[in-house]
Amino acid sequence: MEQSQQHNGAPKEQESEHAGESEGHVERGYTSSKDDLLSRLAKIEGQIRGIKRMVEGDRYCIDIITQISAVQAALGKVELSLLEGHMLHCLLGHGGGPDTPEAQTAEVMSVVARMMSK
Amino acid sequence: MEQSQQHNGAPKEQESEHAGESEGHVERGYTSSKDDLLSRLAKIEGQIRGIKRMVEGDRYCIDIITQISAVQAALGKVELSLLEGHMLHCLLGHGGGPDTPEAQTAEVMSVVARMMSK
Amino acid sequence: MEQSQQHNGAPKEQESEHAGESEGHVERGYTSSKDDLLSRLAKIEGQIRGIKRMVEGDRYCIDIITQISAVQAALGKVELSLLEGHMLHCLLGHGGGPDTPEAQTAEVMSVVARMMSK
Amino acid sequence: MEQSQQHNGAPKEQESEHAGESEGHVERGYTSSKDDLLSRLAKIEGQIRGIKRMVEGDRYCIDIITQISAVQAALGKVELSLLEGHMLHCLLGHGGGPDTPEAQTAEVMSVVARMMSK
Repeated sequence: MEQSQQHNGAPKEQESEHAGESEGHVERGYTSSKDDLLSRLAKIEGQIRGIKRMVEGDRYCIDIITQISAVQAALGKVELSLLEGHMLHCLLGHGGGPDTPEAQTAEVMSVVARMMSK
Repeated sequence: MEQSQQHNGAPKEQESEHAGESEGHVERGYTSSKDDLLSRLAKIEGQIRGIKRMVEGDRYCIDIITQISAVQAALGKVELSLLEGHMLHCLLGHGGGPDTPEAQTAEVMSVVARMMSK
Repeated sequence: MEQSQQHNGAPKEQESEHAGESEGHVERGYTSSKDDLLSRLAKIEGQIRGIKRMVEGDRYCIDIITQISAVQAALGKVELSLLEGHMLHCLLGHGGGPDTPEAQTAEVMSVVARMMSK
Repeated sequence: MEQSQQHNGAPKEQESEHAGESEGHVERGYTSSKDDLLSRLAKIEGQIRGIKRMVEGDRYCIDIITQISAVQAALGKVELSLLEGHMLHCLLGHGGGPDTPEAQTAEVMSVVARMMSK
């Protein structure tokens, strides 16, 4: 994994070739489940804060690792759900992503290959 | 992964058999790198907030997945570093964890098996 | 992973709902690269035999693990390549698999979820 | 994963620093379970042959991927079992591996990091 990350912790918001089009009001694969997605991310953020408190409190290493694993599992589910929504969105021809079978396959597979190698 | 998680997002702070002893001022495998660990977790928390903003801004799915992958990779490094510190700490006989070769091996391997199956 | 396996080591050849149709001369997502696929699998089989020889020769544990990791990486590439061929094949409407966007997405995502959890 | 592999499929039997000492009659972490290990590897070899037959028989892609996943899970278990045996063997001071806590930790963690990144 060599995603570059900004020093302030904010994800580097580089624009993909599709990302730029009229940002902010685009229909995405996750649009219908946006609230659920945001609440899962809020919960994950709370879990990270909890892990920080565990470190501050000198908690047992293995217990901290267990919590980190729980966060990773939660993030993995978010990833799968985003990819599923995106793939269906593209296959239904809803736009904003690749629109040929070849490009759709290439995009999904490159994400999957990346998810595999973590 | 079926770690139970409290509804408020805070990790469930269940006590492991070793965790309870005089919490708060125990020497842990991560004690010497605690500041570094906390700053990595703070950065990860910032990344999660950045991902929430991407969702709020209807950003491109694949770009969001990319950022989630970056967080997972960062968490994976934190996990490895915690496990490494813990294992060395135990092998050096610094206490707070298992103190026989059999128990030390069993503890490390159960964490590794869990990390593998994510 | 709890795939049941027959005792003789042969994969359990359970029929999926799509597998049964006129077996043996069906066009598959991997048909055009069948020779390459078979040669990769033959090489992997040779690697497994090499690992058996290492065990018989009491070779160093870590060196054996290294070879197993190489086999797993090779298998992972075969999996990705099969999935890519299959997805494209389905999206192009070549038959033998699911033919609605919903079913295609569900099939790919269930494979990906399984690959993730290994 | 960039383990180099010989063209004939045999794992490259490079010598690690520990591997060379009086090969063939050394006590290893897996010595007591050598028969079990060999029979698991023989079964895996049979599974690979079964996968080749599935490809030759034009079987359904997803079914082939399922079998590959079963092999990867079986290999993962072999890896964990080898690492566990090795770690215990080293911590008990049985020789043939690193003999300081620092070197033992470094060796185990480098294997784990490699297993994670597959």
